[in-house]
This record gives sequence, C-alpha cells and structure tokens, in this order.
Amino acid sequence: MKKKINLKENERLDDLGIKELKIIQNKSGFCFGIDSVLLANFAKDLKRGSKVLDLGTGTGIIPTLLCGKTELKDVVGIEIQPEVCEMANRSIKYNKLDDKFSIICDSILNLKKYFLKQSFDVVVSNPPYKKINTGIVNQNDAKMLSRHEITADLEDFVKAGAEMLKDKGEFYMVHHPERLVDIFYYMRKYKVEPKFVRFVVSKVGDMPKLVLIKAVKNAKPFLKVEKDLYIYKENQVYSEEIIEMYKGE
Amino acid sequence: MKKKINLKENERLDDLGIKELKIIQNKSGFCFGIDSVLLANFAKDLKRGSKVLDLGTGTGIIPTLLCGKTELKDVVGIEIQPEVCEMANRSIKYNKLDDKFSIICDSILNLKKYFLKQSFDVVVSNPPYKKINTGIVNQNDAKMLSRHEITADLEDFVKAGAEMLKDKGEFYMVHHPERLVDIFYYMRKYKVEPKFVRFVVSKVGDMPKLVLIKAVKNAKPFLKVEKDLYIYKENQVYSEEIIEMYKGE
Repeated sequence: MKKKINLKENERLDDLGIKELKIIQNKSGFCFGIDSVLLANFAKDLKRGSKVLDLGTGTGIIPTLLCGKTELKDVVGIEIQPEVCEMANRSIKYNKLDDKFSIICDSILNLKKYFLKQSFDVVVSNPPYKKINTGIVNQNDAKMLSRHEITADLEDFVKAGAEMLKDKGEFYMVHHPERLVDIFYYMRKYKVEPKFVRFVVSKVGDMPKLVLIKAVKNAKPFLKVEKDLYIYKENQVYSEEIIEMYKGE
Repeated sequence: MKKKINLKENERLDDLGIKELKIIQNKSGFCFGIDSVLLANFAKDLKRGSKVLDLGTGTGIIPTLLCGKTELKDVVGIEIQPEVCEMANRSIKYNKLDDKFSIICDSILNLKKYFLKQSFDVVVSNPPYKKINTGIVNQNDAKMLSRHEITADLEDFVKAGAEMLKDKGEFYMVHHPERLVDIFYYMRKYKVEPKFVRFVVSKVGDMPKLVLIKAVKNAKPFLKVEKDLYIYKENQVYSEEIIEMYKGE
C-alpha cells in the first residue's frame, strides 16, 4: 500500500528502485547523482547491525540506499542545511526508517557534542568536491554548500570521520580524482589507512571521473587499486555492473 | 661502425632499439624490464639541456634511454652496488655518452657529499619495490638490493630526490600501485606535489600492475589521473602505444 506524501512546491519524489524506497529532493537544489549510488554500492557489504555515520548526508540518499541493501540498526546522517535536513526527515518518515535512521542538523565540526569518539563501525561520505574559490560558485545557496567546502573542508571531513570510527572501522568516500593526494595525505595523517581504491571511468580509454576509496582505521599500509568501474559499455549503453547496481534487490 | 666490447662471463649486451644504444646486463642479476622503458617514456618530454638525476640507476638503463630520446647535457646516476656501477660505466663508454652521463657509486643517502641542494631540474627513479620483510627475498644479493628496500626505503628516495630538485623541478617515478599512499604521503611531506598519475594495466578489465607518477617541487595541489596505459590490446598483442614506445626514433 502506497503511503501519501505532501510535497512542497519545487520538490519531487524519486523512486530509488530498491524495496520501494523513495527520496524527496528539491528540483532546483542539489539532487543526488550516480556518485551516491556508486558509493552506497561500494559500501554495501557492511556487516549487519553496523553503526553507520554519513558525513554531509544531504537528503539522506546514501543511508537510505544502504538501508535498502543491508540490515542496519543505527544510521546517523549529519547535515548543516536546515531545509535539506527537513526534506531528509520527511523521506525517513515516508520510507518508515524512523526506527533506524536519524538526522542531526549541524556542522560536522560539532559531532563531538553528540557522540563520544570511536562510536561508529562505519563512516560514509560524499563530501563537497570543490575547494573554496575554485570553479564557478553556484548562485543557489543550497547547491553551493553541497558542492563547495564552505563550512568544512576535506581535512575536516577526514578528521571528523576518523575520530568517530572505532579501531578497524571502515571509512568509505567518493570524490574527484584531482583530490586523491589530499585524501590519501589526510587519511594517513588521521590514521585511517586507504586500503582499496576504485576509479570510475565513463568508458574504456577515458580519464577517470570519480574515485571510490575504502580506508580502515589503524590498518597497516597496503593499497589495492581495483580494476576500473566503467559506466558505459559502448556509447550510451550502460555496463552490466551499472545495470546490476540500479536494478536493486 | 660497431664498437667492440668485452663482456664478462654471465653478461649480455642488449640493444635498446634507439640510436644504436645498448646496455650491459648480468644474466643472473636484475635485468631492466618494461617499468624502466615506461618511466623513460613518461619522462621523455624533458627540456633539452635539463640536468637529470637518476636515483638507484642500476645498469643506467633509464638515463641511457633518456639520452636516446632527448638532447641532455648532464645526467647523473647514483647506484650503491659496485659491480652494477662498473657495468653501467662500460655501457656509458660503449654508447659514447661519457661527456654527458656519469655514475656515482654510493648510497642515495650520501648525495649531499656530491651536490648542493636544488642542483637538478629533473629526478627520475625506479626504486626498489618491496619493503624489507615482505615478499620472497632473492638469494642473489644484487637482485635483492635492486628489489628490496635494504639500504634506503621509499621515504629516503623521495626525500633525497626532493632535496636535489630546484623549485618547480620535476620528479618522475614508477612503482607498484600498492605503495601509492606512501608515495603521495612522502611526496607531499617533502614538498614535491604529485601532479600526474598514470596506471599501467595489462589489458582492459585488469587491475593495474604499475603506476607512473610525475610530481613538481613546490607546486600547488591538483592531481590529473590520466587514462590507463594498456600493455596489450588483446591476448599477447601489444597495444599501439607500447609498440610506438619500443620502436624508438
């Protein structure tokens, strides 16, 4: 039975294709893209019952996808934009995930107000990609905060995640390859060692567009660079791996 | 006119396919592989007249290839194994590169005995790949020193190269992807910023076997991950890019 939902003007309800989960998004705001789907899929082999934290959760897309893929009991998303948190909370209610997924509306810099250090088994994050003063700054505030490191930068995200992780806890991140030196440098600095990296490439022969990173708290150095993840097989035809990902359960 | 050469027992003379250059190698020692060819090719767009340093030069394969590809005036290779240095020196004489290419037989830790800091435009290195106590340690001493970080480790190689580079000087390295976090971490630590990375993959769909890195002294962070370099097109058939590389001039 479909639940009724009141959407505000300028909002839309998108079907995630897994267990009838849906997400509310603002049409003129930052809408989730393939990066969130790729990250949720990269992190999908979480142990059942893992305690998960999503840094900069936005509309809650990554935890919602993870709840669709894995039996999770306690998932927290932290997001600084109140209007986006409000949308995330309505999606949580709509998807009946209230008993496991909650939103904290605050800066990731304030996580210690809510949790003791080493409280989580898993941290996921799709942080803002752009440094301040690089790229075109979007007129729309919500889009700008989602895309640029306005209130917290990459080092803040890595540091915050590292502090919240238990020993041997896992940190999953998606980012642009141009920031990979920063990511590796800060991850080692804060003692979450990058263990797996996978580049996302549009099609064979292209440069990578995205990179998926799995790091482990206090692990020994040894990086596995996995085979590329191709989005397309040929022009406009999705690869089997992507089709499998979107097919859901 | 071919020059005569006296090879010792257990030595062989290999044709490099460029400008009649050849290299003396010990059949039972560490012989140059595709990694050296890839690195020399990755670094081939050096400015004419650049002052180049090769850290752990072995038989001198990389500087010899670079001399074949670019007009260089002053190239130094440093190598710790006396018997390998002696072979390198005979190759230099055979190739008539004496006026531009010289060997220092010492540890890279002692570079400051020979040069002031910031003396070079370019540093290249194909350092030992294995950490001490990892992998099978080869019975043959020369092979062991070439493959394992016995006398100097990756941090020593990065630090030594960084110290010898002028401002905006270029550092080219080939290594195994498993050490990429170490490489990025130490390069940033010693202020040579990784700017270009290229993964070497046997064939489409495989994991990368090698990684080529270009870093620039005191440069701003921004990494370009280039498209993969494939060794094979199909099973056993070299890719056009590899054929072009081996064809020489």
